[in-house]
Amino acid sequence: MKKLMNGPDTVLAESLDGFAAAHADIVTLGPGRQFVRRRETVAGKVALVSGGGSGHEPLHAGFVGYGMLDAAVPGEVFTSPTPDRIVAAAEAVETGAGCLFVVKNYEGDVMNFEMASEILGREVLTVRTDDDVAVENSTWTTGRRGVAGTLIVEKILGAAAERMAPLADLKALGDETNRRTRSMGVALTPCTVPAAGRPTFTLAEDEMEMGVGIHGEPGRRRVKLATADAIAAEMVGAVLDDLAPSPGARVILLVNGFGGTPTMELYLMANAARTVIEGRGVSVVRHLTGSFVTSLEMAGCSVTCTVLDDRLEALWDAPVRTAALRWGA
Amino acid sequence: MKKLMNGPDTVLAESLDGFAAAHADIVTLGPGRQFVRRRETVAGKVALVSGGGSGHEPLHAGFVGYGMLDAAVPGEVFTSPTPDRIVAAAEAVETGAGCLFVVKNYEGDVMNFEMASEILGREVLTVRTDDDVAVENSTWTTGRRGVAGTLIVEKILGAAAERMAPLADLKALGDETNRRTRSMGVALTPCTVPAAGRPTFTLAEDEMEMGVGIHGEPGRRRVKLATADAIAAEMVGAVLDDLAPSPGARVILLVNGFGGTPTMELYLMANAARTVIEGRGVSVVRHLTGSFVTSLEMAGCSVTCTVLDDRLEALWDAPVRTAALRWGA
Repeated sequence: MKKLMNGPDTVLAESLDGFAAAHADIVTLGPGRQFVRRRETVAGKVALVSGGGSGHEPLHAGFVGYGMLDAAVPGEVFTSPTPDRIVAAAEAVETGAGCLFVVKNYEGDVMNFEMASEILGREVLTVRTDDDVAVENSTWTTGRRGVAGTLIVEKILGAAAERMAPLADLKALGDETNRRTRSMGVALTPCTVPAAGRPTFTLAEDEMEMGVGIHGEPGRRRVKLATADAIAAEMVGAVLDDLAPSPGARVILLVNGFGGTPTMELYLMANAARTVIEGRGVSVVRHLTGSFVTSLEMAGCSVTCTVLDDRLEALWDAPVRTAALRWGA
Repeated sequence: MKKLMNGPDTVLAESLDGFAAAHADIVTLGPGRQFVRRRETVAGKVALVSGGGSGHEPLHAGFVGYGMLDAAVPGEVFTSPTPDRIVAAAEAVETGAGCLFVVKNYEGDVMNFEMASEILGREVLTVRTDDDVAVENSTWTTGRRGVAGTLIVEKILGAAAERMAPLADLKALGDETNRRTRSMGVALTPCTVPAAGRPTFTLAEDEMEMGVGIHGEPGRRRVKLATADAIAAEMVGAVLDDLAPSPGARVILLVNGFGGTPTMELYLMANAARTVIEGRGVSVVRHLTGSFVTSLEMAGCSVTCTVLDDRLEALWDAPVRTAALRWGA
């Protein structure tokens, strides 16, 4: 295992300290590093709280700030955050208008955020993301997994919350955005959890895992490495088959690197994916390309499409100021 | 070799097409994909043009836009762009106030940008960056190499150019910013140039290359993998010894990933580097953490410090709107 670290036990704490110092204009750490929160909360605004295992940076802490999340709760690497941390985060940023949890659909996360809701005993609703079309009922998940599309749900909810949308409306908006969002990924290499010290899976020199999850969970099939165009055709095909967009539909195309993928390859994949999408009569009207929802140093990428309407497009374009996404603010 | 591509010959063209489509609000491609340029030029503003081998993305095309570069000229992977491309880029964005080249100190780049200057036969000056303290007179370079600090020079020059600073002043500002900027890097893994198909060098499972260049060139020494704190102490120590900042000096700290390094590790390194810097009585007043000047999928990072004064700090903070750096605009 080759990692820039001082030891597996302190990776999370030291990384959080570095993150908080680097973005001190936007975020601050909760007591005992239990959560990352917006430096200033807005009275009367619904509090948006997300979280999950670490190792997916910049998700979620990188999306805390104006126009996106109020708090993010990091667990240990690939491990759900405990309910007490989630409760502490919600209590720190809730200002009387209620709290909306955004939870990726993994059993541990779902259970711990549910327990936190019960403990909080105040107005909390949850949007569960399950955008990964690759598999149903996989390792650690009943139903579909929540993956990179989660950031699109968080961005759109964040913009609506900033406009003072009430809790019930945000819950409906989050569910609708999730329904309009689908993803699929491919891994070229595995990744290594610091505390484990060895790769989560192995892949031969000429193999890839098609439909991989963001913890390196198995996908649809393990196959020989294919061309970028063939990979894009399979992933975009699966995404669009599931979304079944109307002819002339407009989409956001998110090409997301898993942590070990060169930027050059991500733009090449964006080009390949756009060609497939537009070949099916759908317009890519917004692009996001980069490593946003990662699996430590895994090589590979995912493709996400969100079908827009005028409202979602305006919310996507609204100002955002976070460590990892920033425009118009 | 595992890469998301259709073949080595089309990597650059397809990646540029994806980049231009993803950032069509900011950039456009020159004819024959010879360069990436700002969509709109500003009459009377000095044109800032940079470039170099590809494989370092987002450098330089990701820094084209308001408040930074007017054009970037990509060569093939790790190969200098040819003079005719540089000439075409300069002619496309020069509006009568002259042109400033920002060139990383590699022999091929220096030679080709010099040839372009001669061909252009108009007012062109050049800032050559050589911020890497690791080695002198290494592979492909006489003197020190230009590495991640180049982006700081480009940002500060871009802000000053936007304020209509004349060409001679920009040349002096660029040289001064370069003198105030020092970097050093470490590699944990090599990288593979698509056309070569095999790694540029090899490292044993327990080794790292201390002082590596951004093409995987040899550094100071090949040693056993050390802790993040020990690595930060060596790199920051070398940088600060060379800069010799006054007590109480203020610096930008750039922790730059080489392409295959998880975000989590970069923030951990930022934390370690900040501790060393502040232990020497120097204040980190600005942070930039991420993969900005990469070596394809190489794992590792570099640390850069720029000693600020009030003018440089204001220019760093000035609005910028590019694919890879965006704030205040």
